[in-house]
Amino acid sequence: MTSPDRVESLDAPADIAAEVAAGISSFLTAKAAEFEAISPDTAEIGTALIDFTRGGKRIRPVLLWWGYQLATGGGRRLGDGTDTTRSALAEAAASLELLHAAALIHDDVIDHSDTRRGEPALHRRFESLHAALGYQGEAEPFGVAAAIVIGDICLALSEEIYETACDALSGSVTAQALRAQMRRDVMVGQFLDVRAEVIPLDDDRISERAWEVLSFKSAKYSVEQPLLLGAALGGASDEQLAALSRFGLPLGQAFQLRDDVLGIFGDPAATGKPAGDDIREGKRTVLIAESLRRMPAERREILAARLGVGDLSDAEVAETVTMLAEAGGLAAVEELIAIKHGEALSELRRWSDDGQALDAAGSTGAGTAFRLGEGAVERLEDFATKLSYRQR
Amino acid sequence: MTSPDRVESLDAPADIAAEVAAGISSFLTAKAAEFEAISPDTAEIGTALIDFTRGGKRIRPVLLWWGYQLATGGGRRLGDGTDTTRSALAEAAASLELLHAAALIHDDVIDHSDTRRGEPALHRRFESLHAALGYQGEAEPFGVAAAIVIGDICLALSEEIYETACDALSGSVTAQALRAQMRRDVMVGQFLDVRAEVIPLDDDRISERAWEVLSFKSAKYSVEQPLLLGAALGGASDEQLAALSRFGLPLGQAFQLRDDVLGIFGDPAATGKPAGDDIREGKRTVLIAESLRRMPAERREILAARLGVGDLSDAEVAETVTMLAEAGGLAAVEELIAIKHGEALSELRRWSDDGQALDAAGSTGAGTAFRLGEGAVERLEDFATKLSYRQR
Repeated sequence: MTSPDRVESLDAPADIAAEVAAGISSFLTAKAAEFEAISPDTAEIGTALIDFTRGGKRIRPVLLWWGYQLATGGGRRLGDGTDTTRSALAEAAASLELLHAAALIHDDVIDHSDTRRGEPALHRRFESLHAALGYQGEAEPFGVAAAIVIGDICLALSEEIYETACDALSGSVTAQALRAQMRRDVMVGQFLDVRAEVIPLDDDRISERAWEVLSFKSAKYSVEQPLLLGAALGGASDEQLAALSRFGLPLGQAFQLRDDVLGIFGDPAATGKPAGDDIREGKRTVLIAESLRRMPAERREILAARLGVGDLSDAEVAETVTMLAEAGGLAAVEELIAIKHGEALSELRRWSDDGQALDAAGSTGAGTAFRLGEGAVERLEDFATKLSYRQR
Repeated sequence: MTSPDRVESLDAPADIAAEVAAGISSFLTAKAAEFEAISPDTAEIGTALIDFTRGGKRIRPVLLWWGYQLATGGGRRLGDGTDTTRSALAEAAASLELLHAAALIHDDVIDHSDTRRGEPALHRRFESLHAALGYQGEAEPFGVAAAIVIGDICLALSEEIYETACDALSGSVTAQALRAQMRRDVMVGQFLDVRAEVIPLDDDRISERAWEVLSFKSAKYSVEQPLLLGAALGGASDEQLAALSRFGLPLGQAFQLRDDVLGIFGDPAATGKPAGDDIREGKRTVLIAESLRRMPAERREILAARLGVGDLSDAEVAETVTMLAEAGGLAAVEELIAIKHGEALSELRRWSDDGQALDAAGSTGAGTAFRLGEGAVERLEDFATKLSYRQR
């Protein structure tokens, strides 16, 4: 195989996030004006979406951006003044944020969540609006209806901005297929999540099911697929895509396993979520599955009786949290995170100078998909560690 | 301008409907298999969507198909064995059915509807499944959650099949913009519908608002835009698109005005909906606006107190129906339907031999976008009359 271009550096996450945020905001402002041309009554859609998309960690945009940089030979191509490419890439990255916003808006309706990123969830926002503006009828169903529809609009806008980006980036067939898969997998994962919560806890497939939800609703969608999509937009080879999967899938799994840990053991002050939130919600995570299989039968019964009970007292939640730690579920998941994180990093190492040298010496026996300079390796390693070992 | 190709005939609606139904079914079957490869727990998604998309009038697919035939010079191009084009067109048409199915699934959640096309609404289907399979937790929120997510999946599938179709039909930039507009307008229209229901009835904009909902949620989306999209996929000129709008928009308005009439005065045995359904739902239709402005103040108050009250007795509903007829609202809307229907037909007549002759004689002073044979004119006229004057 031909040796890939060496990638010395990758853009800084904060710079990418700022560029994508600006892209989202100007796109939504333009769309809000189009909506208002239909009717002044649409004004609330634009402001709600602009507010809603302001926060977030911007993980997916950064990964898409880097996927593109890795496939096209790094900062060079983006840094040398091709502004059209740069803004199209920001649009493609923005489309992932809008897809994610749509999923979160609907997710919050489904989970009856009151807050999102420290602000009222979108359905709660419209519920409050109903009261504040003296609308007729019931406030709560109005909030839910508005959130369902605005989630749909957000999904449509995600398509729209992606299509614009694709026109400029000359999106490949592979990119189109990846985008379709990503859009779909997250929703199928969400269905599996909803469905897992109603299956009795003693079901044989509980662990398998938790891994399905973790992989499709989150690991692929949040980490692996953004990388792949960015790379495909940059014309990546099949070998490069496979290498990105070997890095992105385990990293995505570590990312979501950490999310599961934070959902139960996280510090409410840091996560912005109530303590033991996932217990009241009844989420069937890998952490729950790993704890269950280590528990004596009578404790399993207590856990089964408490998972998904929305009005559990704080004391009951605290007791359940302790039970999960005592069972060894937490330790098992920390071990899994370390393993998955390690898998990702060992793939990354193959792209570094050291890895190339080993490869050249024939000790790995496989081709190398990327050739990264130290700066690029550091960026990826740093980001990966933040995903696997974050506090919030 | 150059004279357009003469279009002698258009495919029969029943043939188009059959071809599109077959396309939807084979596409969904393939997707269901892909989902099951993710997890056996997804099986319910496929069967639910296959069942849900089985019914319906197939109005939008027929109009898209005809738009394409009109722009490409009629049955000729589709009839002479270009199977690729034909199946791509069926896919493009199927994407409209899937978009519509997604909108209906979410609509039924929002309106708390129990049935759709004579079958249980999707959220009710999953509510029953919850009970039948002995799932844990509450059945109703599970049904709603499943319907929100499956609506999202259906939306994603609509994009997916459209993209496949576009690859084969070499979709133009105009087609892409139209598709984006269509996908968005229906959702913005749905938001306006939700929002209109909570505004006090004495608001100044009630009539304007009813026309906004009627145009964006239905007239454009159900009639005008499918025609335009099909035509754009066939490479229509701007003049042809403008002509299709002059036909399609008023026809779409007549179609939705008829829907409003049937929602209140329709025969439950024919419509499959309870008598006076729109009254209990509190829909703010043009019919309601036209009735209100003709009513004495005390009757307006009675109407305001009853609209949107879900548990209104059958006697109260019947009395309200009578009030609306007595106020002259029904007669006013029938008049509006006749006017809009007439506008559509007068545009259609310009495309016929008679219209061409008049045009050639200089009496209209405008170019002619289409040249239709008698068979094609009859098809369109017949279909238009069915839309404006249907019983269900």
